[in-house]
Amino acid sequence: MEVSGIITLTSDFGLRDANVAAMKGVILGISPQARIVDLSHDVSPQDIAAAAYILWRGYPNLPKGTVHVVVVDPGVGSERRGLAIQASGHYFVAPDNGALTYILRDAPPGPERGAIIHLNKSQFWQPRVSNTFHGRDIFAPVAAHLSLGLRIEELGEVITDPLLLPVAEVKKEPGWIRRHILYIDRFGNLLTDIPEVDVLSLEKPIRVLVAGVEIYGLSLTFSAGSPGEIIAYIDSSWRLAIAQVQGSADRALGAKVGDIVEVRGG
Amino acid sequence: MEVSGIITLTSDFGLRDANVAAMKGVILGISPQARIVDLSHDVSPQDIAAAAYILWRGYPNLPKGTVHVVVVDPGVGSERRGLAIQASGHYFVAPDNGALTYILRDAPPGPERGAIIHLNKSQFWQPRVSNTFHGRDIFAPVAAHLSLGLRIEELGEVITDPLLLPVAEVKKEPGWIRRHILYIDRFGNLLTDIPEVDVLSLEKPIRVLVAGVEIYGLSLTFSAGSPGEIIAYIDSSWRLAIAQVQGSADRALGAKVGDIVEVRGG
Amino acid sequence: MEVSGIITLTSDFGLRDANVAAMKGVILGISPQARIVDLSHDVSPQDIAAAAYILWRGYPNLPKGTVHVVVVDPGVGSERRGLAIQASGHYFVAPDNGALTYILRDAPPGPERGAIIHLNKSQFWQPRVSNTFHGRDIFAPVAAHLSLGLRIEELGEVITDPLLLPVAEVKKEPGWIRRHILYIDRFGNLLTDIPEVDVLSLEKPIRVLVAGVEIYGLSLTFSAGSPGEIIAYIDSSWRLAIAQVQGSADRALGAKVGDIVEVRGG
Repeated sequence: MEVSGIITLTSDFGLRDANVAAMKGVILGISPQARIVDLSHDVSPQDIAAAAYILWRGYPNLPKGTVHVVVVDPGVGSERRGLAIQASGHYFVAPDNGALTYILRDAPPGPERGAIIHLNKSQFWQPRVSNTFHGRDIFAPVAAHLSLGLRIEELGEVITDPLLLPVAEVKKEPGWIRRHILYIDRFGNLLTDIPEVDVLSLEKPIRVLVAGVEIYGLSLTFSAGSPGEIIAYIDSSWRLAIAQVQGSADRALGAKVGDIVEVRGG
Repeated sequence: MEVSGIITLTSDFGLRDANVAAMKGVILGISPQARIVDLSHDVSPQDIAAAAYILWRGYPNLPKGTVHVVVVDPGVGSERRGLAIQASGHYFVAPDNGALTYILRDAPPGPERGAIIHLNKSQFWQPRVSNTFHGRDIFAPVAAHLSLGLRIEELGEVITDPLLLPVAEVKKEPGWIRRHILYIDRFGNLLTDIPEVDVLSLEKPIRVLVAGVEIYGLSLTFSAGSPGEIIAYIDSSWRLAIAQVQGSADRALGAKVGDIVEVRGG
Repeated sequence: MEVSGIITLTSDFGLRDANVAAMKGVILGISPQARIVDLSHDVSPQDIAAAAYILWRGYPNLPKGTVHVVVVDPGVGSERRGLAIQASGHYFVAPDNGALTYILRDAPPGPERGAIIHLNKSQFWQPRVSNTFHGRDIFAPVAAHLSLGLRIEELGEVITDPLLLPVAEVKKEPGWIRRHILYIDRFGNLLTDIPEVDVLSLEKPIRVLVAGVEIYGLSLTFSAGSPGEIIAYIDSSWRLAIAQVQGSADRALGAKVGDIVEVRGG
């Protein structure tokens, strides 16, 4: 697979303490022409599920051949493994803690996904590895090598038992879909992983049930409703979402990540 | 006009949700060597006036031939147009909602400004355009193409009626200037668009009136006064501003954006 | 010394007001291919000691030949000097206010450190210098020129009396070490400048005393202890630090920057 020379970073480091800069410094030391894009560093501390969601939603916006690094890593320094995979035309590097759950779910083994590699070849790491910052000492240098075209198989041995988050399977019965709120964005919108195509396959009119509220039909834009109205819409990653017009759906509904979202047709 | 290969981004997206990264991914997919500079992504949600001010104050620090993209876009998905203009040696891409008000005011039609282009040629957009994220699907790809040297006229048709914010005209009568606070910065300084040259043209001593306070003369630096003192000074964009020494002028004075600032000479 | 073409920025500007972008614009105008890494822009306003610590801890992660710029500058516009030095294989540019204290302490004059240069050659600055933004008008252009290979001696005259923060000397007596908390990171960890090598040179078992608490021995990882436990560990810059397992040591202990940390052996 051709590489793009681009590396994205996702972490819970925040931007105050220069940990992100440490990873960038290591990357540029190995791959001076790498272009680095911050996906997010404001993941809540140790919130692996949020990191997994942000990565999954964000990576398709980058060119194919990009290397995506996630460092939300409460188990750093313990026996948890580091992983690298090639999936859906991109590379992913992360601790084996569930951060790649959605990536692995959407790219089952086959032409779209290569083997899962356990990072255990220390020649591609920093010379000395700390116990508390594998993002800098293992994941960043591995990503830099990948961005230069290193074959992923060089990085370690194949494993088949990555840790996955307990993400509920998509339940799709004729006439309805049941999923969860997976993420709440800066504007208070409630985001799911229900694909537009599944919503459109239901018989109209559709109804969306969330946090005790029933929403009729889909709105095309935020400005379509009246202020305060709760609307369902297809978001920019082509999945169902819920918003409040000129407001914040999470505050208006008291909704939180994990709450059930149900879509019924007809 | 020669391009610099640099693109700046201004938005109200914040940095938590990877929307900024989505725009960068699209840009790098089209223009892999583009260098991208974040002007600000902490514009208050939907605060077009603040975005317009930040853009106007910030763009001259970039090299000529830079493309500046603004995405504060409450009307996304509605009929509001997208615009591109060439003005004062730079390119600007934004929704037609007033974000370019100060740019257009300072570069009246003529040698300093090209035609205002309505972005309606979809061949320069993402293949599929969402209803909620034109920043990624229209403005980012258009900016990427401009940064590669595409002629701005290719992007759409000329229009002459851009939407402008109701920015008060500069009132300059012999002996005094009357304007408003346009922005309050992180340090609580009150910023205006009164040019230094206009202030210096007044007969000395000058007095600045703001929020019920009268300030005598200009201070050269923040450290010139005693702690707590309210001072007027010429800021780093060569315009009149008001500060509190070792404090926050907006808190000390209870001042807010839109409040009148008056300068009197003699 | 060979240059890396990389420039890092550390400031108290925050990211809302486009001051960071102003510095980047000036840098890219002079050195279009410079790669710029943000170390931190969330230094508390005017907290020179925090900036000095962040710089010192962060710079070794960048490749040799990188130029590091610090702009925490309460004295901007006054008579305080601007400085540039070459030390430990890197370049540093900052106001003469103590921001380079740890850099200068760790690289005493000799093969590891060049002369301290007072920036007084205005041909390397912006054509017009404001009174309030030397970061953009002096430090950014100077850094851009250094990143292109300009000899540091060209930038001004040698001085020998830089301003240093009153950092206590390292007190090392047989059997104990006494220092201070220098920084508290995003996770509430208490960071010091006590090198691992000094801690390991003490007779075991070692004890760490901080904020009225006595900690026995060193933990290898955050996950080594039980939730709520206060542990001492060697951080990712190979220095002693104190953490609370799954908690925040600064809140748990009521500790603050400047508090004494003592390590006793035997």
